[in-house]
Amino acid sequence: MASAELYSQTLDLSEGSGSAGHTEVRIGAGVLSKAGELLGDWVQGRTLFILSTPNLRRLHGATLDPVRAAARRVVELETVDGEAAKTTGEAAILWERMLAAGGKRDSRLLSFGGGSVSDLGGFVAGTFLRGIACVHCPTTLLAQVDAALGGKTGVDLSGGKNTVGLFLHPDWVLSDTLVLATLPLDELRSGLMEAVKMAYLLDPPGLERIEATLPDLLAGRADALAPVVAAATATKLSVVAADPREGNRRRLLNFGHTLGHAIEGVLGYEDLRHGDAIAYGMLFALTLGEGRGLPAADADRLRQLLGRAGLPALPSLDAADLLAYVGRDKKATEGGVTWVLPRRLGEGEMVLLSDLSSLRPAIERFLADPWGHLAG
Amino acid sequence: MASAELYSQTLDLSEGSGSAGHTEVRIGAGVLSKAGELLGDWVQGRTLFILSTPNLRRLHGATLDPVRAAARRVVELETVDGEAAKTTGEAAILWERMLAAGGKRDSRLLSFGGGSVSDLGGFVAGTFLRGIACVHCPTTLLAQVDAALGGKTGVDLSGGKNTVGLFLHPDWVLSDTLVLATLPLDELRSGLMEAVKMAYLLDPPGLERIEATLPDLLAGRADALAPVVAAATATKLSVVAADPREGNRRRLLNFGHTLGHAIEGVLGYEDLRHGDAIAYGMLFALTLGEGRGLPAADADRLRQLLGRAGLPALPSLDAADLLAYVGRDKKATEGGVTWVLPRRLGEGEMVLLSDLSSLRPAIERFLADPWGHLAG
Repeated sequence: MASAELYSQTLDLSEGSGSAGHTEVRIGAGVLSKAGELLGDWVQGRTLFILSTPNLRRLHGATLDPVRAAARRVVELETVDGEAAKTTGEAAILWERMLAAGGKRDSRLLSFGGGSVSDLGGFVAGTFLRGIACVHCPTTLLAQVDAALGGKTGVDLSGGKNTVGLFLHPDWVLSDTLVLATLPLDELRSGLMEAVKMAYLLDPPGLERIEATLPDLLAGRADALAPVVAAATATKLSVVAADPREGNRRRLLNFGHTLGHAIEGVLGYEDLRHGDAIAYGMLFALTLGEGRGLPAADADRLRQLLGRAGLPALPSLDAADLLAYVGRDKKATEGGVTWVLPRRLGEGEMVLLSDLSSLRPAIERFLADPWGHLAG
Repeated sequence: MASAELYSQTLDLSEGSGSAGHTEVRIGAGVLSKAGELLGDWVQGRTLFILSTPNLRRLHGATLDPVRAAARRVVELETVDGEAAKTTGEAAILWERMLAAGGKRDSRLLSFGGGSVSDLGGFVAGTFLRGIACVHCPTTLLAQVDAALGGKTGVDLSGGKNTVGLFLHPDWVLSDTLVLATLPLDELRSGLMEAVKMAYLLDPPGLERIEATLPDLLAGRADALAPVVAAATATKLSVVAADPREGNRRRLLNFGHTLGHAIEGVLGYEDLRHGDAIAYGMLFALTLGEGRGLPAADADRLRQLLGRAGLPALPSLDAADLLAYVGRDKKATEGGVTWVLPRRLGEGEMVLLSDLSSLRPAIERFLADPWGHLAG
């Protein structure tokens, strides 16, 4: 462990960004073994809330013991696994629990779990007593490359995902790729899709690394995963730093997400994991991109990588349902829906489509054959 | 109306404040008759959510018709009167309603009501789709001089007031003193206590104006109220500008609030209005201040003004209950509770008291005789 490479990255949004904050990120195989040292000052003399799930606590909870030892006192908070954690009801339970446990404005919250745990934990931290500081220790690949970075927090309403939340930059993010070894293959593949999403539009060398090490990544090898997580982190933080409140450039990170969210929503967040839904969203964006000049070779390169990753089949879906959902997307504005489309490998563009119904034939073709001409 | 004086003030927190925002405030008798003009650009082409209560809509709702006419479409939202509006459950109902009504990131929310409506409305706006812009049109004196200003939003948990929330600066605050004429005397007096609180520590000329015009203020005369609201607004915004996230100086605004919140909390937010509870909190702070050198003449000057205002009697309370509540105050930190104490008229200080139990005799004396030696 001691010899494993440790990657350090920093997000600093201090001036006039509309979303000020400073996040120190440490990535590597075994980084949690250093958490007591890294977070010692941060928790000293404080009440520390640790939000996790029973499963994670059982599997990896002891790795946080040095952090626990450094705090004045520790209050363990629990939520459930997966998207079911992200409800306003779960948030209310945590707020009440934290208040009853004597939480103060200078208390701290550490989230230890996947993206749903950091999304819920960040939202609860950002609103408890009008905001206490938080740290995320993401335990899924999805959370390490995406969800725990960039300050977005939120919970879901019945009508849509992440529809209640705020921007809160964690003080630290500690991404230990060792804990990823216990993830099932499906979970690793789903998380990897977010790394692919960023690499395809923003980091072609990173895409090459994913292509070259795909079997090791899907096998959960910590040493192979660390540089991929580090590259995705660097990409995401650079975009966030340029556009912390998602005015424009940050929207590039939504590649695949407009239709992907609709697929998830129409399926009731069942039958398909988030990353897999986003992968299908990227496949659809490729077809729209090709209609606007995306070279076929660039489109096929992504199709091939997604094909090698072994996505589960797309469940049966109705184009009208998807379109209705897209229209309610929280990124929609009064003027229409902005799609992120690839122009070529390493370059994306935002395209505002005001007439959603015109997309119906393209969605129908996509549902009939998601892989486009590769499948032909 | 057209000839009534209109006061303009601006809060600009653009750089590195940890709570960026820009608020334009307009104060005066009849300012809402100009709202269509002032907010026309702000709502143009947008979905406008108007949050109010049935009572307010009946009494004054039509004054907003020009704003309604300027929006692309209007969705009316309702909550209940008073503190009962400030629950996580009410927030959840509004979030769901806004999403179902097709709210977007560029939608707008206007709160039209007292402090509970702007607190709830600001919280819901700040978290819906991770934040939409909002405007407050406060309709109580309390909200005009305090609650709607400075960006604090929040709802209550069973264990404490304003324990869930965030900082969100409204784009506009329109304070029309004409609508105050329909308030009952008790409500005017309670609101005036917050203006007294600010004037006593931060604006001695403002205190003189309140002393000189007290009967007109308690009678709800719009022209007398306008300069008092304007002075309180100027004081509050200057403190907020210096310290947007309540690190230190902003805490001066908590004069009277540490014991005042405890009085309200122990009484279950019944039997005493917020401003009246804060007035009793100030009376208690005067006794602590006198023990540290506050001149008796300065203390008595405030006691006399509060006496003239006609506070209702303090209900029977237990010192131990109050102390337990103070210890759970959200402004408490691990190191103790910070009290705002007057040093002399126009000057306050923050005093950290780590040993709360030492206050018990002082609280018992206060409960036995809240008016101190004035009553002797």
